[in-house]
Amino acid sequence: MIAVFPDKLMTPKQIVMEKLEMKLNNLINRALIVGGTHGNEFTGVYLIKLFEQFPELIRRDKFETLTLLANPEAFAVGRRYIHKDLNRCFLRQNLEDTTLSTYEDLLAKKINDSYGQNGKKPVDFILDLHSTTSNMGVTILIDNEEPFHLQLAAYLRHVNPAIKVYSSGNSGRSQNALRSLGKFGIGIEVGCIPQGVLNADFFLKTQSIIYTILNYLELYNVNKLPEFPNTFILYKYIEKIDYPRNENGEITAMIHPQLQFKDYEALNPGDPMFLTLDGQTIPYEGNSITYPVFINEAAYYETGTAMCLTNQHQITV
Amino acid sequence: MIAVFPDKLMTPKQIVMEKLEMKLNNLINRALIVGGTHGNEFTGVYLIKLFEQFPELIRRDKFETLTLLANPEAFAVGRRYIHKDLNRCFLRQNLEDTTLSTYEDLLAKKINDSYGQNGKKPVDFILDLHSTTSNMGVTILIDNEEPFHLQLAAYLRHVNPAIKVYSSGNSGRSQNALRSLGKFGIGIEVGCIPQGVLNADFFLKTQSIIYTILNYLELYNVNKLPEFPNTFILYKYIEKIDYPRNENGEITAMIHPQLQFKDYEALNPGDPMFLTLDGQTIPYEGNSITYPVFINEAAYYETGTAMCLTNQHQITV
Repeated sequence: MIAVFPDKLMTPKQIVMEKLEMKLNNLINRALIVGGTHGNEFTGVYLIKLFEQFPELIRRDKFETLTLLANPEAFAVGRRYIHKDLNRCFLRQNLEDTTLSTYEDLLAKKINDSYGQNGKKPVDFILDLHSTTSNMGVTILIDNEEPFHLQLAAYLRHVNPAIKVYSSGNSGRSQNALRSLGKFGIGIEVGCIPQGVLNADFFLKTQSIIYTILNYLELYNVNKLPEFPNTFILYKYIEKIDYPRNENGEITAMIHPQLQFKDYEALNPGDPMFLTLDGQTIPYEGNSITYPVFINEAAYYETGTAMCLTNQHQITV
Repeated sequence: MIAVFPDKLMTPKQIVMEKLEMKLNNLINRALIVGGTHGNEFTGVYLIKLFEQFPELIRRDKFETLTLLANPEAFAVGRRYIHKDLNRCFLRQNLEDTTLSTYEDLLAKKINDSYGQNGKKPVDFILDLHSTTSNMGVTILIDNEEPFHLQLAAYLRHVNPAIKVYSSGNSGRSQNALRSLGKFGIGIEVGCIPQGVLNADFFLKTQSIIYTILNYLELYNVNKLPEFPNTFILYKYIEKIDYPRNENGEITAMIHPQLQFKDYEALNPGDPMFLTLDGQTIPYEGNSITYPVFINEAAYYETGTAMCLTNQHQITV
C-alpha cells in the first residue's frame, strides 16, 4: 500500500519510520513543574517548596522532573506580579524584544533561556500550578487541542471525574503563557481560594493530580497507557464579559448572588448576571446557553473581566 | 437621698444634672461610616461609593452621617495598604509624631484632623467596614466593653441572631484602629471573601446592618430604644497563633482541613490544628477549649497570625 500525501509518496517503511520519529519526538524526556507564576497563588508555591525539599516525590524513572518557583519577587511581597503579569510575557516577539525590561519581561526571558525549546534545558512538558478566587473546583487548563493534551485530559477525568477541562485557546493563551514554552503544557487551576492564602484541601488535591500526571507521563513514554474512556466534556472559551461600569470606569454592579460560585453551570438568556450597587438585576443578554468560568476572579477586575463565557463540547480523542 | 461617691457628696439635683450631662455627652450628633481602610476589602469601598451617590440612604433626622473612603491610594492599586496598615496608625503618640511620614502615617493624621475629637468635624460614632478571608460570617468588632458598645451589639444580635460579636480589646486595637478616633466605634467584619473581590451577598448583609445601626442611633438619641434581650455571647481575644515555620521563617504547615472555615467553633486540646506540607497533623496543644477566629486570614500571614484564639463570655448589659 502506498499512502498518498498531497506532496509526497511514501513507502510502507517510510510510514513506519515517520510514525516512529513522531513518537520519539513526542517522548517526554524532561518535565517542568511550575508554581508561583502568580506570586499570590500559594498552592503552587508551597508545592514547589515541598518538592524541592523532597525531590523523591516527583522523581520518575523514564524522564527528568524539574521544578521552578517562577516569580519569587512577587511571592516575597505577596502579589500577583511586580510590574506586569508574568503569564502574559511569553509571546515570541516579546521574548526577542530587547527594549522590554520590566522585572517580569526579564524574568520571562530568563525562564525561556533556561527551559524554552532553544534553552539550556528545553522541557517537553510544563505543568503550571494556579489558583483562582472563582469556584472552579479542580480545572485542567489546555491552550490548544493537540491530541497529547486531549488524551491527558481524558485520562485525568477518568481518574477523577470531578475534574473539569477548560480550553483557553481562543483567548490567546497558547502564545503568551509560561506553559507555552514547553513542547506540551497544561495548567491546573483550583478554587475558590483567596489570593495570599494556602488552602490544605486544594493543596492535597493538586498534589494528587501532579502525581497522577507524572505517572501518566511514565506510562506514556513506555507506551503502556491503560485503556480509558476517550470522550469528555471540554469547555471552550468564547469571550470575556466585563462588569458594568460608569463613565469613569468604576464598577457599578456585582456578580449577581444567583450566579456567584456557579462556574461551569448553565447560564440561560435572561438569567440574572449582575446586581447593581443600588439593587437592580441585570440579566444575561446572550442568545444562547453558556457556561461561565472565572466568575469573580480577583485578578481579573483590572483586566475588565467579570467572567469568561464558554461553550460545552463533547470531545472524542 | 444623698448619693455617696468616694470623693464627693451630691445632692439629688446634682445627680440628675450629672446624668443629664452624661446623656448629652453621649448623644450621637455625628456618625462616620468608613470603607476602604484596607484598600483590597471591596465591600466597604463600594458601599461608600453607593452612599456617596445616594446620600439619602444614610440620612437620618437626629444626627449627621458622613462617609469616608479611608485609603483611596491603596484601593486604586488593589492592595491592603501602600506602606503600612492604616488601621494600626492611630496610636496617640504616632499621630503626634512629626517624624512619621509614610503615606498611611500622613493619612492617619489627616483623618484625625478631620474626624478626631479635636478635629474639624469630631465624630461621636465610627462604623468601619471590613472583610476577611476567614469564615467569620457577619461579625461585630468591638474594642472595649463600654456599655454603649455592648448594648448596640446586643441589639444587633437581637435583630440578626446569626451575628457574632468579637472583642479585640486585649489585642491593642482600642488604641491604634481608625475607629478609636470616635467617641464610640465598632467594626463590621464579613467573610469569607477573597481580597480584591466584591461579594454581593455580603455587600447586602453589610448594607442591611448599617441601616439597622443608623436606625438604632436615631432611637438611642431620642431615648426610644425598644426592649431587647440584654445577654449575648462575646468572643474575647486571648492570643494569636502563628504558622509553624522553619529556621528561615518560611511556613511549613497549613491550617488543617478539619479546622479551615471553622471560625467560632470549639477547638479542644488535641484537635487537629495544622497540617505540615509533608502531611503530618499538628494538634492544638492548649489546656482548654478555645474558639478560633481569623482562621487563615490572608492579611495576617505577614503578621505571624494563623488565627486568633478567643474565649466565650456570656455578657449581660
